[in-house]
Amino acid sequence: MSLPSHVRLIEVGPRDGLQNEALRISVDDKVQLVDALTAAGLGYIEVGSFVSPKWVPQMAGSAEVFARIQRKPGVVYGALAPNLRGFEDALAAGVKEVAVFAAASESFSQRNINCSISESLERFVPIMDAAKQHGISVRGYVSCVLGCPYEGQVAAEQVALVARELYAMGCYEVSLGDTIGTGTAGATRNLFDVVGAQVPRDKLAGHFHDTYGQALANVYASLLEGIAVFDSSIAGLGGCPYANGASGNVATEDVLYLLNGLGIHTGIDMDRLIDAGRQICAVLGRPSGSRVAKARNAG
Amino acid sequence: MSLPSHVRLIEVGPRDGLQNEALRISVDDKVQLVDALTAAGLGYIEVGSFVSPKWVPQMAGSAEVFARIQRKPGVVYGALAPNLRGFEDALAAGVKEVAVFAAASESFSQRNINCSISESLERFVPIMDAAKQHGISVRGYVSCVLGCPYEGQVAAEQVALVARELYAMGCYEVSLGDTIGTGTAGATRNLFDVVGAQVPRDKLAGHFHDTYGQALANVYASLLEGIAVFDSSIAGLGGCPYANGASGNVATEDVLYLLNGLGIHTGIDMDRLIDAGRQICAVLGRPSGSRVAKARNAG
Repeated sequence: MSLPSHVRLIEVGPRDGLQNEALRISVDDKVQLVDALTAAGLGYIEVGSFVSPKWVPQMAGSAEVFARIQRKPGVVYGALAPNLRGFEDALAAGVKEVAVFAAASESFSQRNINCSISESLERFVPIMDAAKQHGISVRGYVSCVLGCPYEGQVAAEQVALVARELYAMGCYEVSLGDTIGTGTAGATRNLFDVVGAQVPRDKLAGHFHDTYGQALANVYASLLEGIAVFDSSIAGLGGCPYANGASGNVATEDVLYLLNGLGIHTGIDMDRLIDAGRQICAVLGRPSGSRVAKARNAG
Repeated sequence: MSLPSHVRLIEVGPRDGLQNEALRISVDDKVQLVDALTAAGLGYIEVGSFVSPKWVPQMAGSAEVFARIQRKPGVVYGALAPNLRGFEDALAAGVKEVAVFAAASESFSQRNINCSISESLERFVPIMDAAKQHGISVRGYVSCVLGCPYEGQVAAEQVALVARELYAMGCYEVSLGDTIGTGTAGATRNLFDVVGAQVPRDKLAGHFHDTYGQALANVYASLLEGIAVFDSSIAGLGGCPYANGASGNVATEDVLYLLNGLGIHTGIDMDRLIDAGRQICAVLGRPSGSRVAKARNAG
């Protein structure tokens, strides 16, 4: 067993998390959340999304959030930019890194973003060109990598095709997302084995949802496959409203607890992280989705 | 990676689970729970505990429960018998297998059962003698194997000493319990590595609590160490009232989901298992602690 000595956690709570919460929160509260996450030592925070507020009202005000957060040197503050219009808005807001996303399942792509997988990849070409021109790095997401709400099983080979395309077009890292949380440890290992033959493993990240309680087992399985980057969400905020039954992202606190236990370095302060989660849960009026936070608050 | 092809799940919900629920439930409801678990295909069900109802009122009526459950051939219906008096009561109730428990931490032993570890082991000698005489098999539990609420870290070597004693005195299997749920995957692997040098691995079981969300990752880590028996609790019932912050046992449904995903045979029917959990949660008026059950009920 050889595990990575360092892991980077990509905090997706302010974007993927809040986007899927019923309550819309103020720019003030978003800024406070991002600043609290910065203080906790996160190295990458996905701050918002540059999409039409008509489609995703929770992400309105992302430009203002970017203008007001306190940026700490060395920390990446990313944003989702699903199309060129979004990319230009992100650029105007001073964003230095954007993310694009494709699905590994045709049905999910059609129902979620109204186009085929290959059409979605074509749409990224002008974004990649513009990003290169402006020195912006681009991260790629692939959704439904371990199951699709419409198609059921998704072949790892299909995921590999999409991941390879994203990598080939210039994404510096590709995050593989188990959108509906049906993946288990063996399938996770097989996924990274198959995709890892097409994209270097140090360019891959794992993104797990805890819908069926499997997320941390999948993180551990990924670590055993040499994966050293994971997306997670403070207090387990969010999920995917387009996927039937899908609930929260794996909680950052719980992933950190696992990594700390394994002696893997992250640079994140657990106490401050739990504070950040407590704050945003108070704003949202919801209990934390992190078991670590619950256990700490009960103690 | 070589995983066991078959896993035995030890259903501890009716005992370890209900014992730690605030609500006392009727003998009727207990019988219905055990029968539902039998119907779901569990091969081992810990039905109750023969202790003074003064100490554990939730376990009152265990003899009546044993008298009324529908026993399916091949299924083991076990009971906790912490002392000779309990053993005799269990024997009178027609119990064919009992369990005894010791702690791996001196402080926990003192506070939980009011004696040292070695005193607790001495108390088991007459039970083991009586069990042998009556052809009763005895299962051993060790608690606090990955952390103690009073002492913090517990050395795996200390767990190995206690496990070896239980095995040497005739326990056919020793279950290692992470009572407070602070164990992580690496510590779990080390634990089975160290204890496995003293007790054959096929005589060891894992018993994990999900207090910090680590239970399934620990189950997967144990499987990688060749462990093929796990204790779990329907709907994640229970926990340990004596351990600060300790909450529920890992949910049987969630462990089964992991094992099914890994292609490991258990003989358990997921739908019937979820039904059993739904029934008992309705009786208790509490939500399920199983993420699988929650996802299924939401779908």
